[in-house]
Amino acid sequence: MSDALRQRIFAELDALILIDPHTHINALDPASRTLADVLGYHYYTELAHSSGMPKDQIEQPDLDPKEKCARLIARLGPIQNTIQYSWFIEMARELLGFDGDLITEENWEAVYDTATERMAQVDWADQVLRASKLEAVFLTNDFDDPLEGFDTHVYIPCLRTDDLVFHLGRSTVRQRLEQATDRSIDGVGTLRDAIGRIFEHFASRNARACAISLPPDFAPQPVSDGRAETALQSVFTQGMDAAPSHRQALSNFVFWTLAEFCAEHRLPFDLMIGVNRGVYADGVFQGQDLYDSRVSLIQYQQLFNAFPKVTFPVSVLASVTNQELTSYAWIFPNVVTNGHWWYSNTPTFIEHDLAARLEAVPETKQIGYYSDMYKLEFGLPKFRMYKRILAKVLAERFVVDRGWSEQRAVALGKRLLRTNVESVFDCGGETNIELFDADA
Amino acid sequence: MSDALRQRIFAELDALILIDPHTHINALDPASRTLADVLGYHYYTELAHSSGMPKDQIEQPDLDPKEKCARLIARLGPIQNTIQYSWFIEMARELLGFDGDLITEENWEAVYDTATERMAQVDWADQVLRASKLEAVFLTNDFDDPLEGFDTHVYIPCLRTDDLVFHLGRSTVRQRLEQATDRSIDGVGTLRDAIGRIFEHFASRNARACAISLPPDFAPQPVSDGRAETALQSVFTQGMDAAPSHRQALSNFVFWTLAEFCAEHRLPFDLMIGVNRGVYADGVFQGQDLYDSRVSLIQYQQLFNAFPKVTFPVSVLASVTNQELTSYAWIFPNVVTNGHWWYSNTPTFIEHDLAARLEAVPETKQIGYYSDMYKLEFGLPKFRMYKRILAKVLAERFVVDRGWSEQRAVALGKRLLRTNVESVFDCGGETNIELFDADA
Amino acid sequence: MSDALRQRIFAELDALILIDPHTHINALDPASRTLADVLGYHYYTELAHSSGMPKDQIEQPDLDPKEKCARLIARLGPIQNTIQYSWFIEMARELLGFDGDLITEENWEAVYDTATERMAQVDWADQVLRASKLEAVFLTNDFDDPLEGFDTHVYIPCLRTDDLVFHLGRSTVRQRLEQATDRSIDGVGTLRDAIGRIFEHFASRNARACAISLPPDFAPQPVSDGRAETALQSVFTQGMDAAPSHRQALSNFVFWTLAEFCAEHRLPFDLMIGVNRGVYADGVFQGQDLYDSRVSLIQYQQLFNAFPKVTFPVSVLASVTNQELTSYAWIFPNVVTNGHWWYSNTPTFIEHDLAARLEAVPETKQIGYYSDMYKLEFGLPKFRMYKRILAKVLAERFVVDRGWSEQRAVALGKRLLRTNVESVFDCGGETNIELFDADA
Repeated sequence: MSDALRQRIFAELDALILIDPHTHINALDPASRTLADVLGYHYYTELAHSSGMPKDQIEQPDLDPKEKCARLIARLGPIQNTIQYSWFIEMARELLGFDGDLITEENWEAVYDTATERMAQVDWADQVLRASKLEAVFLTNDFDDPLEGFDTHVYIPCLRTDDLVFHLGRSTVRQRLEQATDRSIDGVGTLRDAIGRIFEHFASRNARACAISLPPDFAPQPVSDGRAETALQSVFTQGMDAAPSHRQALSNFVFWTLAEFCAEHRLPFDLMIGVNRGVYADGVFQGQDLYDSRVSLIQYQQLFNAFPKVTFPVSVLASVTNQELTSYAWIFPNVVTNGHWWYSNTPTFIEHDLAARLEAVPETKQIGYYSDMYKLEFGLPKFRMYKRILAKVLAERFVVDRGWSEQRAVALGKRLLRTNVESVFDCGGETNIELFDADA
Repeated sequence: MSDALRQRIFAELDALILIDPHTHINALDPASRTLADVLGYHYYTELAHSSGMPKDQIEQPDLDPKEKCARLIARLGPIQNTIQYSWFIEMARELLGFDGDLITEENWEAVYDTATERMAQVDWADQVLRASKLEAVFLTNDFDDPLEGFDTHVYIPCLRTDDLVFHLGRSTVRQRLEQATDRSIDGVGTLRDAIGRIFEHFASRNARACAISLPPDFAPQPVSDGRAETALQSVFTQGMDAAPSHRQALSNFVFWTLAEFCAEHRLPFDLMIGVNRGVYADGVFQGQDLYDSRVSLIQYQQLFNAFPKVTFPVSVLASVTNQELTSYAWIFPNVVTNGHWWYSNTPTFIEHDLAARLEAVPETKQIGYYSDMYKLEFGLPKFRMYKRILAKVLAERFVVDRGWSEQRAVALGKRLLRTNVESVFDCGGETNIELFDADA
Repeated sequence: MSDALRQRIFAELDALILIDPHTHINALDPASRTLADVLGYHYYTELAHSSGMPKDQIEQPDLDPKEKCARLIARLGPIQNTIQYSWFIEMARELLGFDGDLITEENWEAVYDTATERMAQVDWADQVLRASKLEAVFLTNDFDDPLEGFDTHVYIPCLRTDDLVFHLGRSTVRQRLEQATDRSIDGVGTLRDAIGRIFEHFASRNARACAISLPPDFAPQPVSDGRAETALQSVFTQGMDAAPSHRQALSNFVFWTLAEFCAEHRLPFDLMIGVNRGVYADGVFQGQDLYDSRVSLIQYQQLFNAFPKVTFPVSVLASVTNQELTSYAWIFPNVVTNGHWWYSNTPTFIEHDLAARLEAVPETKQIGYYSDMYKLEFGLPKFRMYKRILAKVLAERFVVDRGWSEQRAVALGKRLLRTNVESVFDCGGETNIELFDADA
């Protein structure tokens, strides 16, 4: 009975048309062109490498896409157990007409060829969006992205700010900021002004969020203009060799300034807390980052208190931080739980973390899921995974354990999947509904 | 089959008459007078505030109880998913004759009126205790509570010591201590003597425990009288502005002294570990506290070793500390697991934490649950929630996974719910059985 | 249906013949001689003590084995709920013909007598191995163990290195090293040479792993020979009273040197991370250790990067570290997840930790389980416990949740239980198959 119940709830949730509130899609090239773009996703390269495939076989320069796929497919055997492998199979089944459980050296070429053919169709990206029941996806844009050449109501801009906060000591970053804002930056005043111009540009192009990923030891605090000026001069002079105290002060100053502009522009500030970059130095591209799970949201106490008008959708990298996230979202009006990030984006952690949030965080303050994808083809299997887990938790913990009606459980699921994305990010008003006209 | 099994085990557990070993009940005013006392519970005010209700609408001075309820009810929609909301509904159904799943702007007034009527009955508190199958509840008494005017075998005193350990630098606290003990406190000797008098007073009034809540960074250690004297003089002179080292030394001295008196009076010392007070400065009353989950019981190593004769029922605020608690109770004879506290008092965490304890801590060393309630009406729904989870864990993990008989599983549940409360706190000998005469 | 499915998967897994990759078996005395050896396992003594049995009743010198059992049996009532107690019962049922659920003061003597009789049989150890479906077990050998007098393909040596890394300041340890390597050790050069000789000895006797347990604050890093020399001279002169910085430098030097020899000899280096020794000073033998769960694998970042050719099977003491272990094994090619250690070796933690690993770590990089046993009789019940949980996770999370075939799920289970032990530790080629000839 519980299995049938889960299936019914899943079917209802899977019928919804959604907005994906965080991806790394390139709006000018959103979908894959060959299966190599699919298998080039860091999950496959890093897991293949982790299970023994040499990095240079994966990252050989000018490698032919088909040869890259041949090599990777040959090394996916050891990762067939992973949930990431299941995304690949479900994608192939739903989008490429594959009919099987495993893609191996025996059967991969047909998949490759079908992919090449379908992905060459001019409306492939729209086909994928439609099949995935996604009407829009949020982007992750560099601060100097011109945000031109695409429909910002389908590909919704989001201002990514890691470079501004942590890498302003690199001359290239400073130069990019000067060029993007058409001004020379020589002090705190001009820096603040430049950041303001970036916000204006993003706001004018329908940006719906500001976002940043943060290392475990970051603990934001305000910095006076005087202290920031000293820090800025040191960092601009000495670059990444400036004293840590100066680099930290400048990071704090920029971060706090971003929050001020988020307040002014009424933009939610996505905080993605907990990543250490480059831990495995010889890892494949995007497969080098890990974390120290000893992080606490108490580090953000001052921030959450200082900006009551800024909504902070918070993602945490480690499941052990999820209870703190649950508790902080339960107490702070401006803290919202946001999806299941990266190393916590696997079923066991999602199930545990989701169940905890559903019981104690107001239902209006939970963003259920985002795909974090780089290519559109992954929206479908990643959201499907989440919806299955959501259906399981709703069935077991609400219908069975708490005696809820099925209808009420589905309504709660819908809120996490769709309604809250609209309300938290103030989007969805001008939706891409023509994409789904045929279905409607 | 598993569902029916859970129901049968729950029914057996729900038939037991219990003692609630930790509440914040005011013995002189134990039950609610109107529904505003119910909805004034911080869970509802903080969750309503978290989901958007302005604090001043909740905490307006001299607010009429009915108007307060009208306002809160109108803002509970976003928290209908929470387990805390389910406590409210179950309480209304069981104690107020409400028949429905949601209390909204449409139907709340009848509930309000019924509540006002029933709560005005002279034996309402006893009715609630009887319906809740609670024969006695532990209190949380200030050190200067006269403990008079109530039956200490129904409302069992417990000496709460946060003020003594952490706030002795406040002149009001010192004055209260001097008045309560009728002596001037000017040094370590008189302070120890005063604390001894407090213990004697509490012991003479049937106190069954000493208790304290502790911040995550507290790590108790003994302090010599000489060092304590220096610290005390500094703190008494400079108050809360005294150097942190002095304040910390005095806290440690008082804490250690409390443990010594617990040994002398054979009182268990409830440690509630991990709370940071006032994290959300603008939160509603009792809705400002959070935590840093980076705490370890290794901080209590010296204490547990130094007082082998004192039983420490330990509660931890974060579920990530539960495995340490389980392990420390498995090794240290004087460490007992105690309930599921505050931010860990939601089903997902209770289920995980309870299951872990049941497998590895001697069954005699686990206090299953306490309600932590401020008004008697919450004992029923909170204990019911726990008993449902306990029945689930016993059914799934003992009867199904380990092949236990149903009878044996129920016996284990009974031990956690009732027997251990009696044995650990040495209570239950003179029980309030006349309350249940009619039922018996 | 799910229950029957679990049973079928369990039956398939339970039919496998395994190698136990970590135990504390004494190869010259591998099995128990009386029931006192069974009940002398620290789990029973420490849990009995924790629930009230005085230490001196357990550890009285020259205590008769039967009297020891009589005393312990009388005190096991409070621990009948624990999973450790279930190991005892399952062992007695499967190996001693006991037929019941509880062994108490009423029925223990028959069990004792049967045990004495059976354990006296000359082939008892082989009987136990056969009944347990274990063809070989790894040992935990002191660095100066002669490794003689046993079949190293059944009792596979493993070089335990805690003494070398942490206790070289004790003159007895230094003397043992000098004797074992037949050389005087007076500096870094001779120390490195001695360690090399130890490795050669172990390698010549079929050692398949090097192993160490590590405290939570250990963070290995390379130390120059010059710095190591200074540290070594200080530690050799002042022993355990040497400055912490010197002791730490020497520990780091020895640890790093061990990793270098592991690389040279292609030996996996088992890291068992997180234990604090002697936390409960008055605890029973082997019942004094606990932990601080605030540990991170980021502490091992430099090590994992520096030794890409050394496989590190990693065990973590606390379940809260399991997600980091999962993530590090997902990224680092040389990190392998290894079993469920000590305080995490109980069903709730195993289930959660195992499920997380199965979803995200390449299936070739997971060592499912080791028994950690001191006497052979515990292999059977401990592996059974694990296999039941593995069957549950495979049934619920792979067959039901992910639609896998039963056959595929069993194959994954087999890989964790058997195949990976062979491939990671390069063993199993010369197996003890004659032990199972009768069954085959």
